[in-house]
Parts: sequence; C-alpha cells; structure tokens
Amino acid sequence: MQVSKYIKSSLLLALTIAVVFSCKEKETKEINSVSESTHPSLILTKQGVKEIRANLGSIPIFDKTLAATKKEVDTEIENGFDVPVPKDYSGGYTHETHKKNYVLMQKAGVLYQILEDDTYAQFVKDMLFDYARQYPTWPVHPKPRSYARGKLFWQCLNDSNWLVYTSQAYDCIYDFLTEEERNTLETDLFRPFADYISKENPQFFNRVHNHATWGNSAVGMMALAMGDDTLLDRALNGVKDVNFNPDEKDNDGGYIRKDGQKIGFYANVDEPFSPDGYFTEGPYYQRYASYPFLIFAQALQNKKPEHKVFEYKDGVLIKSVNALLNLSDVDGDFFLLNDAQKGMSYFNASLISTVDIGYHFGGNDPGLLSIAKKQDEVTLDDAGLAVALGIKAGKEKPFIKKSIELSDGANGDEGAVGVIRSYDWELVFKYTAHGLSHGHFDKLSYALFENGNEVVQDYGMGRFVNIEQKGGGNYLKENKTWAKQTIAHNTITQNEKSQFKGKYDIGSKHHSNKYVFSVADENIQVASAKEENAYPGTKLHRTMVTIKDEDYNNPYVLDIMRVSSEKSNQYDLPFFFLGHIMQADFEYNKLNEPEVLGKSDGYQHLYKEASASANGSNIKLNWLLNNKFYTYSAVTSKNDELIFGRIGANDPDFNLRNEQTLILRKKDVKDALFVSIIESHGTYSPVSELAVNAYSNIKNISVMHNSKEYTAIQIETKKDKSKVFIISNENNDKGVEHKLTINNIEYTWEGAYMFTENK
Amino acid sequence: MQVSKYIKSSLLLALTIAVVFSCKEKETKEINSVSESTHPSLILTKQGVKEIRANLGSIPIFDKTLAATKKEVDTEIENGFDVPVPKDYSGGYTHETHKKNYVLMQKAGVLYQILEDDTYAQFVKDMLFDYARQYPTWPVHPKPRSYARGKLFWQCLNDSNWLVYTSQAYDCIYDFLTEEERNTLETDLFRPFADYISKENPQFFNRVHNHATWGNSAVGMMALAMGDDTLLDRALNGVKDVNFNPDEKDNDGGYIRKDGQKIGFYANVDEPFSPDGYFTEGPYYQRYASYPFLIFAQALQNKKPEHKVFEYKDGVLIKSVNALLNLSDVDGDFFLLNDAQKGMSYFNASLISTVDIGYHFGGNDPGLLSIAKKQDEVTLDDAGLAVALGIKAGKEKPFIKKSIELSDGANGDEGAVGVIRSYDWELVFKYTAHGLSHGHFDKLSYALFENGNEVVQDYGMGRFVNIEQKGGGNYLKENKTWAKQTIAHNTITQNEKSQFKGKYDIGSKHHSNKYVFSVADENIQVASAKEENAYPGTKLHRTMVTIKDEDYNNPYVLDIMRVSSEKSNQYDLPFFFLGHIMQADFEYNKLNEPEVLGKSDGYQHLYKEASASANGSNIKLNWLLNNKFYTYSAVTSKNDELIFGRIGANDPDFNLRNEQTLILRKKDVKDALFVSIIESHGTYSPVSELAVNAYSNIKNISVMHNSKEYTAIQIETKKDKSKVFIISNENNDKGVEHKLTINNIEYTWEGAYMFTENK
Repeated sequence: MQVSKYIKSSLLLALTIAVVFSCKEKETKEINSVSESTHPSLILTKQGVKEIRANLGSIPIFDKTLAATKKEVDTEIENGFDVPVPKDYSGGYTHETHKKNYVLMQKAGVLYQILEDDTYAQFVKDMLFDYARQYPTWPVHPKPRSYARGKLFWQCLNDSNWLVYTSQAYDCIYDFLTEEERNTLETDLFRPFADYISKENPQFFNRVHNHATWGNSAVGMMALAMGDDTLLDRALNGVKDVNFNPDEKDNDGGYIRKDGQKIGFYANVDEPFSPDGYFTEGPYYQRYASYPFLIFAQALQNKKPEHKVFEYKDGVLIKSVNALLNLSDVDGDFFLLNDAQKGMSYFNASLISTVDIGYHFGGNDPGLLSIAKKQDEVTLDDAGLAVALGIKAGKEKPFIKKSIELSDGANGDEGAVGVIRSYDWELVFKYTAHGLSHGHFDKLSYALFENGNEVVQDYGMGRFVNIEQKGGGNYLKENKTWAKQTIAHNTITQNEKSQFKGKYDIGSKHHSNKYVFSVADENIQVASAKEENAYPGTKLHRTMVTIKDEDYNNPYVLDIMRVSSEKSNQYDLPFFFLGHIMQADFEYNKLNEPEVLGKSDGYQHLYKEASASANGSNIKLNWLLNNKFYTYSAVTSKNDELIFGRIGANDPDFNLRNEQTLILRKKDVKDALFVSIIESHGTYSPVSELAVNAYSNIKNISVMHNSKEYTAIQIETKKDKSKVFIISNENNDKGVEHKLTINNIEYTWEGAYMFTENK
Repeated sequence: MQVSKYIKSSLLLALTIAVVFSCKEKETKEINSVSESTHPSLILTKQGVKEIRANLGSIPIFDKTLAATKKEVDTEIENGFDVPVPKDYSGGYTHETHKKNYVLMQKAGVLYQILEDDTYAQFVKDMLFDYARQYPTWPVHPKPRSYARGKLFWQCLNDSNWLVYTSQAYDCIYDFLTEEERNTLETDLFRPFADYISKENPQFFNRVHNHATWGNSAVGMMALAMGDDTLLDRALNGVKDVNFNPDEKDNDGGYIRKDGQKIGFYANVDEPFSPDGYFTEGPYYQRYASYPFLIFAQALQNKKPEHKVFEYKDGVLIKSVNALLNLSDVDGDFFLLNDAQKGMSYFNASLISTVDIGYHFGGNDPGLLSIAKKQDEVTLDDAGLAVALGIKAGKEKPFIKKSIELSDGANGDEGAVGVIRSYDWELVFKYTAHGLSHGHFDKLSYALFENGNEVVQDYGMGRFVNIEQKGGGNYLKENKTWAKQTIAHNTITQNEKSQFKGKYDIGSKHHSNKYVFSVADENIQVASAKEENAYPGTKLHRTMVTIKDEDYNNPYVLDIMRVSSEKSNQYDLPFFFLGHIMQADFEYNKLNEPEVLGKSDGYQHLYKEASASANGSNIKLNWLLNNKFYTYSAVTSKNDELIFGRIGANDPDFNLRNEQTLILRKKDVKDALFVSIIESHGTYSPVSELAVNAYSNIKNISVMHNSKEYTAIQIETKKDKSKVFIISNENNDKGVEHKLTINNIEYTWEGAYMFTENK
C-alpha cells in the first residue's frame, strides 16, 4: 500500500516536472508580454512564481503538495463541475458542491500560475462565468436558520469563505482574461457578492467576531484582486453609517455588537487578540479564523506593504501563530476551550497556511519548519516556497512547547489561560474572559492530558460539525443546555445554577484574574487565579500545582479550590475523569435505576448513578484509561455528598456522550475548601496481563491551615514523606516575605507560595 | 528515546558477545568433562546449545532477546530475591513474587547454558534451595477461593506454572549441582511438589481442562528433568485409581470430569483439540494452554523422541498453532470466544514459544517467520535458534489469514467456528460446542471487526485479569450473571431465558451444527449453521454472508436468523454495536429515566433507555465509530419492539462497561425471521471536518420468500440495483439442483445457496 502510494506520487512528480520543463520556453515569452501586469499579487507574487518555477523538482515538500494538488484538480476537471441552485444546509449536496468549487478554483488558479497550463485557467474561467450567469438570479438562500443568510450557502459566513478563495483564483487568472471578461465578472458577480455580505448584511460584517473576520477578509481580498481601494477601505474599517441595534443577537446567542465598538478588519485584530496573541474565542475558532486573518494579511503585505499589517499591534498576527501552536497537545490536537470539537489539530488545512505565513512573514522561526514537516504539506505560494526551501536547507529545529500563560483581552488584562507542561502532563487552566458567543460558563475550569490523551476532560461542544445526521451538522440544542453550562466543567457550580446565571450578557462583561503563574522550577509549577463575578458575593480562588516528587516517576497535580461567600450555599465540584472505575475507597450506594440529577443549568442532562456521604477522611477514586492507572484523592468534610453522575439525561436523540463524573458537593456552607490530588501512577498490559503500580502513592492529604491570608496543605506519601504547600491568598508579590506558624512550626518564605518537605 | 534504546541494546549485545567469546576456552573443557551427561535436554539440547553459541552475534533477533534477558536477569540478581511465605491472591505481593521467581529461574538457567557464566547457575541454585528449605513447612495456601488450592499460590494452577518453568531451570543447572544437592532438591522440593499437584489434587490433575494440561506438563517436565519414567507416565496418563465424583465442579462452575473420561496429557490433547487444531475453550485459553502443551511436547520430543508426540493425533499440536494464529485479527488480537479478555494477542509471551516451536517442529513454515519477526523476540532455545536462523536467511513469507472454518470437538463433529475475511471485515461466527467451563451460552452469535477494530462486539469476560482492585483480578460475579448469558451476545434469547437454561450441565452436552461454509468466491462468502438444542422445541438457523457489491468500496454483511418453534415465544435479537448513534430512522421514545430491562439471565444488567414499535418497514441505525460511519438495516414486522439498551444495571461496583445495544424483539410468534445488513460506508475526519458517504447505500431489504425449504431475501441498493440471495434451508448438498419460483420468476441453481442480480 505504502509502496504503491509512493510510486504513484513519484510518477506524478515526474509528470509535473516534465510539464514544468516543457513550459520553460513559453514562460520567458509570457513574462515579457505581461510584464506591465501586477498579477498575481495576493498569495503569489510575480517574483515568487518565478522562484517557485526555478526550484520545482528540488523542493520535496512543495513538489509533493504540487503533485497531489495537480492530481486532485486534474481528476475534477475530467469529471466536470456543477454550479447548482443553492438549497441545502451543510452536509447537503449544494452546500458541499459550492464548497468544493471554491477550493478547486483556488487550486486551479495556483496550478495555472505555477505550471503555466491554460487548462487550469480555463477551468476557473468557465466556473466563474457559470457563477456570474446564475448569481444575479439567486435570492437569499432558502434555509432560514442564520441571522445572516447567504446566497450560495445558508449563512454569509460560507459565502465569505467562497469569496476568500475565489479572489485568489481570480488574481491568478486575471491576465488570462480579457478586460471585457473581467468587467463581466466584476460587475455581475464579485461586486454584488461583496456588497451582499457587507452592505446588505452589516449585522454580519460590522462585528468583532470570526464571522466578520471572514467577511472583512473576503471583501478585502477581492478589493485587492480588483484593485479597488474604496472596497478595501470597507474591508479594513467596516461599512459606515449603518444603524446599530444594540439588542440584536446572532444565532449562537452572541450579541452582534457592543455600543461604540470599532468595526472592520483592524478592529477584528485589535479586539479579540491579546498582546500575547491569544484569540479570545479559543484555539478551535482561532484555527478557523487564522486563515482569513493571515491570508488577507499576506495579500495586503504583498500588494500594499505600506500598511505594514504584520507590524500592526506590535506584530500580534505573528504572535498569534505561536500562541495557537502552544495551545495544542503533544500530538498537535488543540486544547478544548469554549465551543470546540475534539480532534481538531494543527494538521487542519488552515494551519498549513498559518504555519507557512508565520514562517515567511514572521522572521523564519526554524521551530515552525518542524511543524511544517509534520504537516507534510505547504501552501503553493511564496510562503510555502520559503518553508520548502528552509526544510531543504535543513534549518528546522524542534518546536518546543513549554509551560506558558497567554493573557486574554485586547490589552492583555482580562485574565489568561495557563498551560502547565510537566513530564507527560499537560494541564490547561482557564481563567480568561468569556470568549464571545462561543464562550462557556466555566471560569477556573481545567482539563488534563497525559501524553496527548485527555484524562480529565473538557466536554467540548455539543455539535458534530458537518455531520448532517446530527442537526444538519450545526450546533445542537445540547450545546447550550449542556456543553456551555458550568456543571459540564471541572469547576464550581453554586446552588445548581451556572456562573453568570448562564447569561452571555452578564458573562461577557467579566473575566477572571491571574494570580500566580510560576513555572521556572520544572518540579513545582504553580498556576493560580481568582474569579469574583461568576456568583456575586462569592469569591473563587483556585490554585493548581504540578509536583514532581523524587520518589515517583510521574508528577502529580495538586488542586486547591477555595470558595468564600457572604451567605450559605451549595457548592458542586465535578471531576470529569475518563475511563473505567477500578475502585473507590468509600462506600457508595448505586441506585437501582439512575435518577435525573436536577432541573436546569445542565443538571437536567446528568443522571445520578450512585451516591455516598463522606466521613471526613480522604476519598480515593482509582480508574483505568488506555491501560494506565490513575487516582483522584480528595479531602472531604463530614457529610460532604459524593455523586457518581453520568451524562445523557434529557437527551432524546442520543446527542451526548454518556461519560462519567464524580461530584463533590458541600451544602449549606459559606466558605469551602476543595483540595485534591490527581496521579498517574501505574500501567496495565492486556498482553502480559501485568498490573504495575496499580495503587495511589498518596497516603493522605490534609488542610493544615486555612485563613483569609494563607492556605497550607500537607501531602503524605506512601514512602512516609510529608510535604507542605502554602499559598498566600491575598498577596501575590514576588518579593514579599511571609511567615506562618502551624502546629508550632514556623514557615518563612518569599513570594506568593512555598513548597517544602516537612521535617 | 528510540536511539538511546538502540544504543543500549547494542552495548548489551556487545557485552554479551564479549562474555561469550571470553568463555570459549572454558566451553571446550567443560563439554569434555560432562560429555556423559544428558543435560540440558528439555528445551535446550546439548547440540542446540553448541549451535547457539556458535551463532551468537550473527542472529539479530536471538541476540537482541538474549541481551534483553541478560539485562533483566542481571538487574534482578543485583537486587536479590525473596521467597516469601505464601499469602496473597493474584496481584498481591507473595503471588507476584513467586511468579517472578519462576520466570527468573527459567531465564537464568538458560543464560547459564548459553553464556556459561556460573553466576546464573548459582542464582538458580540459591533460589531453589530457599524453596527446598521452606516448601516442606508450607501448609495449603491460606486463600480459600479455589477448588484446588496450591501451596505457593491460591490455586494449583499457578503452582503448576511454577513447576513448568522451574523444571527447565533445573534441567539447565543439573550438571552444575552435585548429586547430593540434586537429591536434596528432588526429595524436599520437586517430588513432593509434583505429588501435591497430582496425587493430592486429582480433581485438578485428572481432568480434561487447561488446568490439568498445566498440571500434567508440569509433572511431565520435571519427570523428564529428573529422569523419572514412573512420574512421566503419571503425567501422560493421569493419576490412576482415584475415586471419581461425578458431581464435583470447579469454581468456574465446570464439571471436574465426565464419567469414563480419559485422563493425563494425551487425553488433554485428544479431547479439547479438534482435528483442525481448534481448542474447544477458544483462543484466549488456547493461548494460555499452548505454552504447557508445546513446551512439554518439545521436551518430550527432545528427550524421548520415540513418543512421536508431534505426530500424535495426526499432528494436531502443530495444526493448533496455525488454528490459533488464524483466530486473531489483522493486528494479532485474538477473537473473543467464550471467556476472554480484550487485547490479548499473539504478542503474549506464550505465543513466542508457540510460534517458535511450531516453526522448529512443524516443518519450518516460512509464514511463521513473519509472525516471529513482528513479535521481535524468540525463545532462547533450539526452537528460537531455528527461527532466528530462518529470519537471517530471509526465508520469511507473509502469514496470510484467509477465511477459515475450524471444526470443534475431538472428532471435528461438534460444530465449528467460521471466520469470514472479506476486504477489511473479519466476521467471527460461532457454532461450536460449549467450550468447557469457560463457555458462554451464545450459540450462533457473532462478532464483527473492521481493520482490527471491533464494530459489533462480543462483550468478552467479566474480569480484569490480575487487577487486584477488581475482585483480586479474578472472575467477577458479573462474568456469570452477564458475560456468559445469552442476552449479552448477538444471538437469539427466547422468553428472556438463556440458552440451555444457562446451565453448564445442559450446554456442555450439545453443540451447533455446520450447514454451509463457502468462501471460494471472495465477493460472496457464506457461513450458515443450525442450533436445535439451545431451546428444546425451537430451531435456530443463521446464515451470514459477506457481499462485495461492485458499486461500493466495502462489502456488507447480510444476516439471516431463522427461528421456528413448536410454540409461541418471545425472541430477542440484540445488536451490540460500538460507537455513537448518529441517527435512527424510526421514531423512538427515550425514557426520562432508564429502567432495568428484566429480572434474570443477564436482563437484570441491561437498562432500557428507549423503545419503539416497528411499523413493518425497514429500520436503520446509523452510527459513528473511530471516525467511520456504519449502518444497520433490518427488516421488521409490524409491532416488533425495538429497545435501546445499555449495560450497567445491578452493577454495584461499576464492573461492567456501559455500552449500548439495540434489541429487536418479536413477541408471541412461533416462527420468526430476522434479516439485517451491516454496512461500513463512510468516513469522518475531525481535522478536515468532512463527512464522506455518511449514509447507508441500502435502499431496502425484503423477504421475498420464506418456507420450510427456502428463504429468499431481496436487497435493493441506492444505485437502483436489486439482488437476491436464496438459501435452501434443508438441503446443503453441493451438487443438488434447486428451483424456486417467486413472483413468477423462476430461480434455478446448484448447491445450498444462490446470489444473483434481479433483472
């Protein structure tokens, strides 16, 4: 199989090269005859095309991508194309066909430039004229679900996708067309198309949102292709003089605009990106938005370098590439923050251009070459050539992901996401702003990965993207009723109500605050943050620590969630472990038939399967996942309630995954302290049937001290060692000296926290 | 990592070779001085040792295994050993330590022979003397769970394991010991040990069961090592003159013996192996038993070739190697028949010797070399040397697994297991005998794998082997109450009662019967079988067909289950699909809270989550597993009941995996015909978010004809083609001509079935 694949691509490569060389003579002629033209100039430049042609056959990753693209497009040209009358939602025929068309046009345009074969230009031209013929006759798309319905697709978002790709195709075949042909296309198709998604849909175009980014970039790229500076201004600065309705929402429930908000492409760079390059919607949507951000920036830089777009906001677009890659696990899968589908990774097509553009326009970071090499594909343009040449020259270095804190908010002062990497663990701790309309109500939540496998999960979103069987591939109602709700996350729910009352209006006004992020000592890394608005009158302060104990192979995670309130409440802290329960060291009562846990705020989707009452000592839950043994050990107070829950209630269409959780519930208390440790301590082999270190290494965890000022936790291991972790709850200055006496022992230290062996 | 591992093993190899060469001189001397000795002679022979030494350093797979073994044993010698007073169940310290000890002794013995370093002999000697000192003082093991308690371990089975390995170690260091030392060991340890597991535990030793096989081989190998022909006879032919209690059962519920049953090693070869080499307990237990079967056969062949053990029963021991390997999926994981833990594969240590012995004593099948190469390890003995030399000489060929039917029963007349391999599918259809005490009540059940991934599952066993947290690593009570029961399998349960009343006594008296197994045409492969004793008065006839349609990439599976009874019954046919439901095309009512489905026979472990009433047309269930789309399409009759069930009720310790099933229930009918098709038709990528061919290709399935004599099924595809499959229900002769007229169309064919396009 592998071998035959290899032979096939080698053959294709040989063919490609043959075609290229047979065209050499023609090239010289053509370049002379069109030397006054400025096309191509978006993702390919005239100089870039020249260099690509000169290097073909000697740049393996580029040659391979080219051969694969050629094969794909050739097949499609042979099969012929269709421009159907729009009708379907995503997953349906007309949707998928229009989507395929724009991708093909972009690829065929590029092939025309690189291979100088008119067949490709003709293919693009024919398709464009078919669109130009039909577009003026198409009404608004018949499917009604979107707040901004498109014409080709059910939403303007997809129409914008089409234009972003098609503008590149047009740029590539610009000189292939007569002036009259260009006039026809621009008049009948491109200008009305651009107007429709901008002037006629300002509720879509004039936003700060990934939708608008696509819209702005689409219009901007076509403006650059057509050489229309007025249209370019619309893309960069929005549609002026449009009435603004402050109450209008999109169909995800997000507000269209805030009063006084800036609009256009620059506004979309300004606001959602923090100075660290974190995109407030999270990596899943950044991955999606990064294509229009960067492809348009690239086009703008190539055609109008005077805009200095890559220097805008202190070079944030390039920083965002690094931030995005750092929000992926060891396998390249993106962490799940806000709405996000599991399995999305930096192997996604949009990340090819993200990495290549980041490399080409961002100072040739050799770490990016190693990612490009894993992707095994480059963009067929100037940026891709740069990457291919870099790899060929052996410049690549490993892209090393370390622990990193990425601030959120336009000015970097709206919380952050903290990623601690310690040996095989990756801990993703969220203390950000809300994340626009895709945000979840999950302040101070976390997820934990070991070697790229999720161990303590974030549920992700309630959606099966583009799987038509599941609600047309769109958001399912369970996304709102379950996935966004607080109880679906590893954080505190108070009184069975979601944070910020589960309301976007409220949540989007607030953010958590960083408190400590200290990762210099690989063996004791600390992230700590506070949330004071999720539940008015209640303060949450969570500290997560990875500790590498010299006696054990794997670090463990210490989790301290401190709650203080003005009044008595019920606090639920769920623990969404993945895997099969091996043992719980407390007696629980498994119900004969599961009961629905609650009525609203996500509780209606949880079954209670078993429950227990804590006796005040530590509890342990030991489970097996992917042939590894894990243990969760938690401090309890007498009469704390323990609930084994399972997702899946009130889920009439089996939309939810029926995974488990263990909820630790404290009732009728003002203040509460949840302290636990998560360990990965052993392995199992179903082949040798050997279980190694199947049990926890933790003997006991206890709270030595808990006051307004300090919290001190003692950890005793099975090797009879005792360690103490103390955090100062109100002063996080690095230089400050602290003194605390517990049980007649005086602890002194400098900075927000200390960790020591107890003598 | 890989590199450093490589360097390490290279270093070790170099060291090993250095040691070997430095010993060359010594070797010559020693061989002369002990030339009259007959040791070693079990798994190593004097000639074999000579050849191994001569080839060391030039037989990579052997050298690598040797280096790894040396490293392991050296570390353990450095750490010292312990011979603790027996106390624990499996998973516990004393159990695991005694287990480690016998493995180490065997390895050290072999190292002594190959490397001629006295350190290894001394290590074995010291450990053996520690055992000899303590063994006479040990009472029966304190843990009471076994019907045959051991002394070192909780069951004689594990004591036998110990002796099988230790006999090899003793054989290796035999000449290193003085006669007096040998006398001490034999008198204080080996003879009483052999007597204990045989004469003192005839209920263990005098059986036909994998337990007895271990016992027989243990005693036999020690007899060979000591040169005791009387003891050897006991191993081969059992303990004579023991009172036989026909009612006695083991702790798995299996009968100890049947009246008049032969006993001893030969009986254990005679009875459980069919002439095809199928082991009646199934591959999971064959894997376990194959080590004692083959290691003892090897020793017997080496020491007493006059027994011609490998020719016994027409060479069945060698045939069994081939049968076992054919009962693994493309990844080498064994199919789940009867009690079996998922994930067991031919990478298990016992399969190393199975493959090597099979190669060395079975005519040097070059296909086995490719398996050995994947295992990347050989036994450090004559057989392993033969394999290493074969690989070195480049003799290996792929081990090609085709569709195969393996008969069950000592004479091959007690049903069979049929494995159909078609493109990426592997269908395992069970119509065997009961499978001794590890058998499940699941006649005519099946499991389906695609590319080595289970798609329609057999649950396997209710046990987490050697995971102490789960019932000491032993069988859980849910093994009996769930995993063995009929409703846990993809076959018919009548009136909510398991087949054979769920009684071993009854089930073990019967077997299903083969009807058709026809796989010559790769595109239409048929397995058909009948069961007439599971429910007295009811006959079951199932036909499973893989059909590769020219219009589609993947074959689909047609399943025809025909039930006819003397009286009205309820028939349940569950479908244990794995994955997430995407869509069901029938309206179902999801319960607010799951209800326990039934009271006994496994039903008490199923929750009813949703139900529907069929309207008489086809139903479809579409689901997603490992990013592939599958559909189950089934013919229904009006008012058939459909139940979505989930495993997990009455499971107080979360011992069960909470997977789903869809049960098709027909009530108050004498005869019933269940017809369905399983397809794998599409793929999903979470990276590109593209769903390809997400829907079934089957438009409709219908029953064209169903009589005592014939059943005809029509399959209409979405490409508007219509196919017909007809099976003759009462005559399976290949040469017979059939004629059947349906809707005025006459179908004529030869043989038990026909498949044709409907014009």
